[in-house]
Amino acid sequence: MMRGLLVAALALLSACVPQLRGTGDLGVVVERADGRVLVVESTNSTALATVSGLGDLSHAALVYSRDARYAFVFGRDGGLTKVDILTGSIAGRVVQSGNSIGGAVSQDGSLVAVANYTPGGIKVFDTATLAPVADIPAIGADGKPSKVIGIADLPGRKFIYTLYDAGEIWIADLTDPAKPAVTKFTGIGKLPYDALITGDGRWYLAGLFGEDGIALLDLWNQDKGVRRILDHYGKGAVALPVFKMPHLRGWAVAGNEVWLPAIGHHQVLVVDKTSWKETARVEVAGQPVFVMARPDGRQIWVNFAVPDYNVIQVIDVPSRRVIKTLEPGKAILHMEFTPRGERVWLSARDSDKVVVYDTETLEQVAELPASKPSGIFFTSRAHKTGL
Amino acid sequence: MMRGLLVAALALLSACVPQLRGTGDLGVVVERADGRVLVVESTNSTALATVSGLGDLSHAALVYSRDARYAFVFGRDGGLTKVDILTGSIAGRVVQSGNSIGGAVSQDGSLVAVANYTPGGIKVFDTATLAPVADIPAIGADGKPSKVIGIADLPGRKFIYTLYDAGEIWIADLTDPAKPAVTKFTGIGKLPYDALITGDGRWYLAGLFGEDGIALLDLWNQDKGVRRILDHYGKGAVALPVFKMPHLRGWAVAGNEVWLPAIGHHQVLVVDKTSWKETARVEVAGQPVFVMARPDGRQIWVNFAVPDYNVIQVIDVPSRRVIKTLEPGKAILHMEFTPRGERVWLSARDSDKVVVYDTETLEQVAELPASKPSGIFFTSRAHKTGL
Repeated sequence: MMRGLLVAALALLSACVPQLRGTGDLGVVVERADGRVLVVESTNSTALATVSGLGDLSHAALVYSRDARYAFVFGRDGGLTKVDILTGSIAGRVVQSGNSIGGAVSQDGSLVAVANYTPGGIKVFDTATLAPVADIPAIGADGKPSKVIGIADLPGRKFIYTLYDAGEIWIADLTDPAKPAVTKFTGIGKLPYDALITGDGRWYLAGLFGEDGIALLDLWNQDKGVRRILDHYGKGAVALPVFKMPHLRGWAVAGNEVWLPAIGHHQVLVVDKTSWKETARVEVAGQPVFVMARPDGRQIWVNFAVPDYNVIQVIDVPSRRVIKTLEPGKAILHMEFTPRGERVWLSARDSDKVVVYDTETLEQVAELPASKPSGIFFTSRAHKTGL
Repeated sequence: MMRGLLVAALALLSACVPQLRGTGDLGVVVERADGRVLVVESTNSTALATVSGLGDLSHAALVYSRDARYAFVFGRDGGLTKVDILTGSIAGRVVQSGNSIGGAVSQDGSLVAVANYTPGGIKVFDTATLAPVADIPAIGADGKPSKVIGIADLPGRKFIYTLYDAGEIWIADLTDPAKPAVTKFTGIGKLPYDALITGDGRWYLAGLFGEDGIALLDLWNQDKGVRRILDHYGKGAVALPVFKMPHLRGWAVAGNEVWLPAIGHHQVLVVDKTSWKETARVEVAGQPVFVMARPDGRQIWVNFAVPDYNVIQVIDVPSRRVIKTLEPGKAILHMEFTPRGERVWLSARDSDKVVVYDTETLEQVAELPASKPSGIFFTSRAHKTGL
């Protein structure tokens, strides 16, 4: 028996020693067809572990715990899975809705809120235990449930999110989780499809699908209400059929500007963060899906909807010029910069690989095999509002 | 013997299990009189470990490794100590100069550069092994060695820093570590005492002690050279004797403004980041030492030189008004915000404690005993240029 114990102890010992590492250079890649995620590290661009059993990840997003050890993965099947990236295992899982599209961790790290399509609304859980804390259906002024999109954390234990069908922006205050206090901004525009919050947590922008324009809320002056910016930016040009909804998040901010996909057009809009007026428009290769600033705001990387999704373009911010068109692989679904921006990771779904580029030389420096990869998320997001 | 092995294995096992944790909520507090640092966590505001043997920390600074597991501590005795914050132990130590004041880790995490007073210059080391990589004496145009201050990382394997005595700004390119390439900007002003780089890595500001003004370098347009801003901001008012040099770092940026100590005056200057002109001046309780923005840029917290160092003031950024004056303890040497800014940690050296405040309620929420604490540094700095 002692021999058995010794063997077990040594096995556990050898299992635990390799896991001791910082979490600062870690990340997660979603393998969308297999209900799996890869745990990766960006110092040497390698995969460390595979975690299975995450259900339907054909659309998935994730946010990190305050200590960056856990990823909360939101899946297409309504699953909320807490993944321990240090042990490469599932620490908890709840199927909490029919279909969820994203979530947010509260500023203090204690709560995780999930934005649900079906049934429409948000559900909030304790990050330590995944115990349910609140359930807030998104019933609009029209009395019908709405899909919820664009959720982000606000200072305190608050979350902001948007009701797609009803066209409303809500703020839920979970300071007393038993009695969430909800503030509603109604009539913000038609079919807001996604929303972003700037890194300072001040400006919330909801992109509209039902009309040309963006709904803007100044969170430091909420009494001023929601206003419309970039109204009619399509300028009457016939919008193309939208093959894939663009995504909006805080990484759209470069310096004092916000770079946005012009939904239905082969263009990126540049908006000044002080005047909220359009200052430039950049012609690009296709319909943008992700328009992401390098962390220093000196470049914007753009990927595209089908049929242009084998192409990536790099825009130089000061000159607003496309400086490079790359073909890193087939069906580039997502991009993620390393924390200080020296490299960017791109998921090439139909090439079954993740490709790593140097953002100065614009050349490929590494690749990792991955099965139908989609989202890539580095742990630096743990320290950022809205990501 | 098997029993002995089993006991040893179980002991090692129990020793290694508690260390498995994320590094995202960790930090380090310097105990300046004892050559020690505390490893702390900011989720529950507790100390996790004490690490001794770091030499003279009566002036100390630190930066983090790319994975956030290691702190590189720069001490007054010229010591460079690599601390493993997960095991609470020293992973390496080099006494590499007579007196060093700070350092920086390269963008890709491979190099750590130390800014030395004596002998004046920088020394660069491999972050993994602490093997020496380069030694660049700071000999100014006057042929004499200068103290080096204000070091920060730039994209690539570059470092920017300032020569205090010679009044020059240098950029060292360590792409080929055997042949560092140095770019020099001379005649930038008299006795630049510290420098900051904005979070986007674009603007480098060196505060001058020998005259009223700031030297500014646009790193995205280096051919334009260094220019003077805020010239004569003292407006002829007699400057007070400076009891403690202010510190400048990237945390001085709030939104599109930079908040700076007006050296020798009881004032904070507000500078617009687009025009580089002063837009406001805030009267404060003493000579500012640290003027730090909360991560969202909505508040500025200020501490002061003796005799006003028992006081902290909080400024509301939009209104530029001092909204609170606090007395958290005796001799508040340093402040550090949690990554998303919900709390701020303050070191009260002569009260032998670190005090934690909620930045919304402006009330104390925790405290930790610490022996003569000075600098406090959270791991979120690992992902930021210049910090």
